[in-house]
Amino acid sequence: MEHNSFLRFLFLTLALGLTLLLFTWLTFPHAPPSAAELLHCATNSPWCTSKNRFQTHQPNLLNNHHPNPTRRRSHEHDAPRHPLDPLTVREISRVRTVLSSHALFRASPYSLHSVELEEPEKSLVLGWRKGDPLPPRKASVVARARGASHVLTVDLTTDEVTVRRTGTHSGYPTMTMEDMTTATVAPLSSAEFNRTVVTRGVDLTDLACLPISLGWYGEAEEGRRLIKVQCYSMKDTVNFYMRPIEGLTVLVDLDTQKVVEISDKGRTIPIPKASNTDYRYSKIAEHNRVMNILNPISIEQPKGPSFVVEDEHLVKWANWEFHLKPDARAGVIISRAKVRDPDTGELRDVMYKGLASELFVPYMDPTDAWYFKTYMDAGEYGFGLQAMPLDPLNDCPRNAYYMDGVFAAADGTPYVRSNMICVFESYAGDIGWRHAESPITGMEVKEVRPKVTLVVRMVASVANYDYIVDWEFQTDGLIRIKVGLSGILMVKGTQYENTNQVPNQDNLYGTLLSENVIGVIHDHYITFYLDMDVDGSDNSFAKVHLQREKTSQGESPRRSYLKATKNVAKTEKDAQIKLKLYDPSEFHVFNPTKKTRVGNPVGYKVVPGGTAASLLDHDDPPQRRGAFTNNQIWVTPYNRSEQWAGGLFVYQSQGEDTLAVWSERDRPIENKDIVLWYTLGFHHVPCQEDYPIMPTVSSSFDLKPVNFFESNPILRIPPNVEKDLPVCRPAASA
Amino acid sequence: MEHNSFLRFLFLTLALGLTLLLFTWLTFPHAPPSAAELLHCATNSPWCTSKNRFQTHQPNLLNNHHPNPTRRRSHEHDAPRHPLDPLTVREISRVRTVLSSHALFRASPYSLHSVELEEPEKSLVLGWRKGDPLPPRKASVVARARGASHVLTVDLTTDEVTVRRTGTHSGYPTMTMEDMTTATVAPLSSAEFNRTVVTRGVDLTDLACLPISLGWYGEAEEGRRLIKVQCYSMKDTVNFYMRPIEGLTVLVDLDTQKVVEISDKGRTIPIPKASNTDYRYSKIAEHNRVMNILNPISIEQPKGPSFVVEDEHLVKWANWEFHLKPDARAGVIISRAKVRDPDTGELRDVMYKGLASELFVPYMDPTDAWYFKTYMDAGEYGFGLQAMPLDPLNDCPRNAYYMDGVFAAADGTPYVRSNMICVFESYAGDIGWRHAESPITGMEVKEVRPKVTLVVRMVASVANYDYIVDWEFQTDGLIRIKVGLSGILMVKGTQYENTNQVPNQDNLYGTLLSENVIGVIHDHYITFYLDMDVDGSDNSFAKVHLQREKTSQGESPRRSYLKATKNVAKTEKDAQIKLKLYDPSEFHVFNPTKKTRVGNPVGYKVVPGGTAASLLDHDDPPQRRGAFTNNQIWVTPYNRSEQWAGGLFVYQSQGEDTLAVWSERDRPIENKDIVLWYTLGFHHVPCQEDYPIMPTVSSSFDLKPVNFFESNPILRIPPNVEKDLPVCRPAASA
Repeated sequence: MEHNSFLRFLFLTLALGLTLLLFTWLTFPHAPPSAAELLHCATNSPWCTSKNRFQTHQPNLLNNHHPNPTRRRSHEHDAPRHPLDPLTVREISRVRTVLSSHALFRASPYSLHSVELEEPEKSLVLGWRKGDPLPPRKASVVARARGASHVLTVDLTTDEVTVRRTGTHSGYPTMTMEDMTTATVAPLSSAEFNRTVVTRGVDLTDLACLPISLGWYGEAEEGRRLIKVQCYSMKDTVNFYMRPIEGLTVLVDLDTQKVVEISDKGRTIPIPKASNTDYRYSKIAEHNRVMNILNPISIEQPKGPSFVVEDEHLVKWANWEFHLKPDARAGVIISRAKVRDPDTGELRDVMYKGLASELFVPYMDPTDAWYFKTYMDAGEYGFGLQAMPLDPLNDCPRNAYYMDGVFAAADGTPYVRSNMICVFESYAGDIGWRHAESPITGMEVKEVRPKVTLVVRMVASVANYDYIVDWEFQTDGLIRIKVGLSGILMVKGTQYENTNQVPNQDNLYGTLLSENVIGVIHDHYITFYLDMDVDGSDNSFAKVHLQREKTSQGESPRRSYLKATKNVAKTEKDAQIKLKLYDPSEFHVFNPTKKTRVGNPVGYKVVPGGTAASLLDHDDPPQRRGAFTNNQIWVTPYNRSEQWAGGLFVYQSQGEDTLAVWSERDRPIENKDIVLWYTLGFHHVPCQEDYPIMPTVSSSFDLKPVNFFESNPILRIPPNVEKDLPVCRPAASA
Repeated sequence: MEHNSFLRFLFLTLALGLTLLLFTWLTFPHAPPSAAELLHCATNSPWCTSKNRFQTHQPNLLNNHHPNPTRRRSHEHDAPRHPLDPLTVREISRVRTVLSSHALFRASPYSLHSVELEEPEKSLVLGWRKGDPLPPRKASVVARARGASHVLTVDLTTDEVTVRRTGTHSGYPTMTMEDMTTATVAPLSSAEFNRTVVTRGVDLTDLACLPISLGWYGEAEEGRRLIKVQCYSMKDTVNFYMRPIEGLTVLVDLDTQKVVEISDKGRTIPIPKASNTDYRYSKIAEHNRVMNILNPISIEQPKGPSFVVEDEHLVKWANWEFHLKPDARAGVIISRAKVRDPDTGELRDVMYKGLASELFVPYMDPTDAWYFKTYMDAGEYGFGLQAMPLDPLNDCPRNAYYMDGVFAAADGTPYVRSNMICVFESYAGDIGWRHAESPITGMEVKEVRPKVTLVVRMVASVANYDYIVDWEFQTDGLIRIKVGLSGILMVKGTQYENTNQVPNQDNLYGTLLSENVIGVIHDHYITFYLDMDVDGSDNSFAKVHLQREKTSQGESPRRSYLKATKNVAKTEKDAQIKLKLYDPSEFHVFNPTKKTRVGNPVGYKVVPGGTAASLLDHDDPPQRRGAFTNNQIWVTPYNRSEQWAGGLFVYQSQGEDTLAVWSERDRPIENKDIVLWYTLGFHHVPCQEDYPIMPTVSSSFDLKPVNFFESNPILRIPPNVEKDLPVCRPAASA
């Protein structure tokens, strides 16, 4: 061994040792945790260290009507009080105990990929009234053991375990957090990997690696759980995403955590510089003139919020009531959304269940280190698992209420994700409705109502991207579902420092954002599951088609007008809908058996906003897996097993269990319990404004009452008057 | 004359007399007004009585950093301080004096339809710096006299009058408020009209009539200024719109105010009942259980707003600066919008001028009393003329600043429209940008910035409809232009009381909303003029086309991806754009001579949101007039005379002077001073929730920087911290 090689070997060994040491230190608790600590931080969940927690700060003592968002809540004694309440800490512990002695798991290593409430049959939930005993509590568990996936039911009353599905499948369950974190250090066990990293000038201690789901591209990758790991340099910046080690991809076996293959193609591509990439205000303030350009502004409710959260999960606000819970896969689940009829005072069903079912994020670069990036964030990573504690005053306004999530680690230990969801009333200065008589009529009438809404928010940080998901409830009966994209781009290294160096025919697959940095074009699709129950479970779906109608000779001075024709969908294929600007329709979910006083069937319509459609080839492997984005709207008959648009086992799936496949069965959907699916889409051609961090881009769609109420339901809400508004003064620091 | 007939005649005469008396009383002041009063209320402007004014109320004394919105401001001594400042009270008076002795107007009746600043040549404005003398002030006047329309320039320094255009034209100027108000009482001079009204059971004193622009449908209506008047019963409700006297249409000559023709077709259709139509809170509270369901909520800025309005019209906020003025036709004009570069500190040009150029609102009912309803609200009614004083606390939040409009009455007398525009900072609890490191990487980073924006708002009440127009400026360089529709539907009377009475083949042209009330289907289009000057006047326009690219055999495991191709428009026809979900593009206005550090041309893109397209036959007379809605996007070379998308003289126009006609000239637009046009559209199929008043429906589009900045411009803005936020307590009434 030559001197140089020996030194390098010594360095690598030391570096590897140090890295592993650091990893071990981060991963394992230093001392046996207390019982309370266990609840908050599973011992085998490195990402849940005490350092990673929500920081407490000075609460606003004057807002004393309001739950204090900074108070850490103990969930040790939580008990379920509603049939849909999520599993409690005690219930998860019970599941863990029961399973640990079950034949499948005894005496062999296993991991639990999902431990969640098995919701009771819909009829039981619909029949349940407050005060009734709860239907039997059951847990639904997805586990890996003995090289296979298992779906089990654990009866929490009898401790009985039922295996509902077991064996090998084409897809795999959502990764555990442990899968992901251990995969990121797996490459360090490869000398080849370490050598190429160091050759590129990156210290192993500066490595930050990401676990990237690899999609499915044929036989070579079938039959075992795999992941691709790519790495970045975090030297001199927390924004390591801007410093890719381009072209280096490590294929890792998720079960053995062994390196399977290394693809090392970008050695000539420099690692982009760190300068101007750190986005932390504390760092920016060191080097730049900061802009203290905005005076303090806040939403104030000195009498406190107008909503209550009963029994931990039942939200009551204005004319709305719904059940709200965190979910490891979907992030947020809204159930039993009901709105109060202003005439009868009765609560009327609108939606049995609504959630973000799946995401699909294909990148548009077919080259070796990029082609496979076609994320399905909910089923692969767990949209809720990636939802971090919200930052009060910045993620949500000061008047927000916070809800924690209780999840299970891979070994079944329960832990608490603090402040995972916030609920707040929003007022942006907008107008709910108004009319002023015009000078033409001369009447002195002006009636205006400010628009105040209730927002439920969760933010999932799936590695670089931050998805802000809002469910916004309005007093006029409308529900707006809004998705905001922020966070950081996934960028590609390049040798180019200026567009003038790029040969004419060279395809960058994106935009040169800074020296040696390309923002790769990609799409985002978020598919929502909306089990509508408009005044009852059995509903129909109709397209109200707007078409140009030509007038006949002599009929009118007009030659044309728009006519609306209602076409009720009989089967699923009638409800596979691509939106068309020049062939528009409204899309109604209505109750054919319930009519308004003047005879219109009561309904809700889905109102698309700005969106994008997937243009990939339908036979392209990623589009087969993401085939639920082939239409913007689908309607399926309610089926307990059809909740995840990409399939239950999305990871490395081949697309046999998607919404598109279910819908092809073309089942009857008229006057049935139906589920509406809507996909919100974004094309993202990056630009320099997305560097080094992205301002939020949002889009939304609405669920809107259409002849659901006899008349506008908000006439009885009074306007603002000065005497009700708060008296405020600048804070003490002023 | 029989006894009965005599009684009826007596009654009619009395009723007519009373009505005229009432009208006269409302129209003319009771005593000679004082000089100050004159400024606020032109004697011949009945809609500007003291009763119609903004009501003062108790100001919030603690918000003493903030201009008091309730203070009536005197404009007697206003002086222009910027080349684009609107005409002042004194300047309008001067125009009036000069014109009254001009040959065209001396000794013959005349009316001024528009008196506004003739903006100086763009080069003069661009060259002007604060402290420089103003370019010569000129007024642009549109007048009717001696049966013709005249466009004049009045030089305010020399009193010189130049006639720029004179004679008869196919279209007519925007109606004066006097045209509209007098037209509404013109039918009362017809005994036939009065008789049919009384026969239908409506007292003449309960009549509320609307002046409805009649579009253009051929020769019979050419050669004279006409209007159609339709009436409603306001008995027992202020919401007379819900009580149409269906089928009764009176054609009135606008110049003579004589009835030309009466169409009386709906005698068998009952007038819908008044019950449950009044929307005033004071009335509703009398009869219903009201919903005091929301605790007070407000946007608070105890240190005052972060913006200043310099010299009455120059708004400076965060990194933005722009000139803001009211306009009788467009409502609001934003000029010289510039954004500060975070790196250089320099203010950079974004948009020279932006405004709502025209509206097109075709109703979809070809029958006698409805076919002609195809409003073009800006050019026919004056979008700004219909903008009423805003209601503080409800139309705009408590932290708003208000700006008055100064307009000219038909005789040239200046008057003040108080609180016509508001400007405020908005915070809805949204997130400007954020990133949290995920548990996968384990880094403890969470950076979040709340989204605070600046909103400029105007609300035009064009009879029944209320259009809320917001220009929203964001710190990331984005401008969002949002239009909200609220107010009241224009409804149709019908004999039907339930949908089960409607024969299968009967086309209602809308939805039965209540007994005897149909909400007629209609569209709304709002076309914006956006004179973009991205870092200078000469810009180009490009479609960045996203297309599926198939990979070649063996190139990649992927079969397809999206590729972006930039196509620069050479001439106008290259930039006539219909949006397509399945054939998407981005639309960039860029400066081909200015590049970022890495070589991207600096630009702004127009980002459509949800919208609708006009589907009427292109040869249909209304669509010929509204041909500017044939595409969603157009780009034209800058031309002083091309600002109003439907033509300068829109009233009864035949469509020869629209954006569509100009664009057909296919002029070069590459590297020129170009104007971008965007049309926002809505299809409105009414539903019962729109009765008796409509909750606001909004849509928007964005102007968004694209490689305009070197990087995200908002990194230097600090997050919220508790110590800066206000300390609030409930108001005294609590």
